[in-house]
Amino acid sequence: MGGTETKAVLVDASGAVLAQRRGTTPPPSLDTVEQVLDLACSLVTELSSRVAPTAVGLVVPGIVDESRGVAVFSANLGWSDVPFASLLGARLGMPVAFGHDVRAGALAEQQLGAARDADDAVFLPVGTGISAAYVQAGRLHAGGGYAGEIGQVPVGGARLETVASAAAISRSYQERTGIPVAGSADVAQRVAAGDPVATAVWDEAVDALGSALIWITALLAPEVVVVGGGLSQAGPMLFDPLTRRLDADWNLARAPRIVPAALGDRAGSLGAALLAAELVNHNHGEEGE
Amino acid sequence: MGGTETKAVLVDASGAVLAQRRGTTPPPSLDTVEQVLDLACSLVTELSSRVAPTAVGLVVPGIVDESRGVAVFSANLGWSDVPFASLLGARLGMPVAFGHDVRAGALAEQQLGAARDADDAVFLPVGTGISAAYVQAGRLHAGGGYAGEIGQVPVGGARLETVASAAAISRSYQERTGIPVAGSADVAQRVAAGDPVATAVWDEAVDALGSALIWITALLAPEVVVVGGGLSQAGPMLFDPLTRRLDADWNLARAPRIVPAALGDRAGSLGAALLAAELVNHNHGEEGE
Repeated sequence: MGGTETKAVLVDASGAVLAQRRGTTPPPSLDTVEQVLDLACSLVTELSSRVAPTAVGLVVPGIVDESRGVAVFSANLGWSDVPFASLLGARLGMPVAFGHDVRAGALAEQQLGAARDADDAVFLPVGTGISAAYVQAGRLHAGGGYAGEIGQVPVGGARLETVASAAAISRSYQERTGIPVAGSADVAQRVAAGDPVATAVWDEAVDALGSALIWITALLAPEVVVVGGGLSQAGPMLFDPLTRRLDADWNLARAPRIVPAALGDRAGSLGAALLAAELVNHNHGEEGE
Repeated sequence: MGGTETKAVLVDASGAVLAQRRGTTPPPSLDTVEQVLDLACSLVTELSSRVAPTAVGLVVPGIVDESRGVAVFSANLGWSDVPFASLLGARLGMPVAFGHDVRAGALAEQQLGAARDADDAVFLPVGTGISAAYVQAGRLHAGGGYAGEIGQVPVGGARLETVASAAAISRSYQERTGIPVAGSADVAQRVAAGDPVATAVWDEAVDALGSALIWITALLAPEVVVVGGGLSQAGPMLFDPLTRRLDADWNLARAPRIVPAALGDRAGSLGAALLAAELVNHNHGEEGE
């Protein structure tokens, strides 16, 4: 469940997608939680017409406490302390895993996507905002729900996501030139065409992302950093300077590979399915003990 | 085992110290590994006079791969790819746990020291150098041996540990004034006495440490950051501005408490003992399966 759109997938035990649906996330209102539950139930029903799922995973943005199955807070979706795991479980009558959108995306990229050959990885979606999630051999690090909010870190006088997010890149270009652009991809095209303002905006963003990458590398030493979100589609214009920055400023061994996400905007829903599968396997394991 | 001194403790199952010894770490030479093994064996023998230990833990600086029991590299101690766990185990005829000095210190501070009331913590020793180790409910994060080398991160044109380590603080003061100082504590006294150069050096160090704290908080959201090493003895002169910096620049929930280490220079040896205890418990667990 994203801020504007909700994606749902039905997967088999191997992670293969059997069917998918999309819906519009209800805007914040007095009964957002009811509407979200209604949407989740209707998507599950639509996906269950031919194969009955054995478990459901739901992931949302904001502060999420996976261990309690609670959505602690979301400014965009307008809720606090919602026990989604038990609410949706009661509605559907089946096990429900509840998690965080970016951490679920990290799990999916490590298990099924761009980092599937690595033991540990950081997933770094750069879109409207910027955050980071660390996953090690299928184990997510949540920090009680608060880990990964790197978009809020001050970098050279501004917060990281006001300089380096895809949204910030198009906003900065428009502010400096008065020329409206469709998004960061539009700015990237202007960089390729030699536009000096676009180049300055782009370089500032890449420089700030480079600082984030160096801190991530120093603290966690992941094997791979998977860059996701809208900006990850910029190709070599993004990945070449980031790799050069790491080569220049990080002379210790084991710098991570910096790679684009493989699962696109399905990372979150695939991660939700993985959390559901984990829940089922865990329950089976406990029954067997 | 540190770069100059080696500390050894004998502990019981509760972590209480029954006896301790210190020795001089052998300087790098052609047979450093043999000398290190000799020293470890003699310290174990000295400590075993009244109570025979059931396992030994050895921790060293540098790049350490705990999972293989191998010291991958140490510039100061002059070795690479030494399988210390099996070498010392063969000498002593008992189980040997092998680990990394800072990560072992983190484990000890979380299990027995300043973070024992917290589930997860970052240990940040600030002495000759600066590094960081993350521990979550007794589980260390090693990143294949490469995690935590934050002293090497560029911060405002210089590497973190060339600005903010205890060694850097005394070195910078001496370079700017020509006045020799005994260490960072000496510079701290001059700050308290109103020396403007000492104050500038101190503020630059605290500012750089503050940046490190914000990245640590954003990425990992630990409950506690335990500052160790020589600089941790500076008291409120260090901890007050660090806490103010987090308050000012980190407006998201769950900023960590910043506290001084409780175990002093025994954190590493206590951590080694905890690793040894873990090894014994783990072996018992496997036998029972």
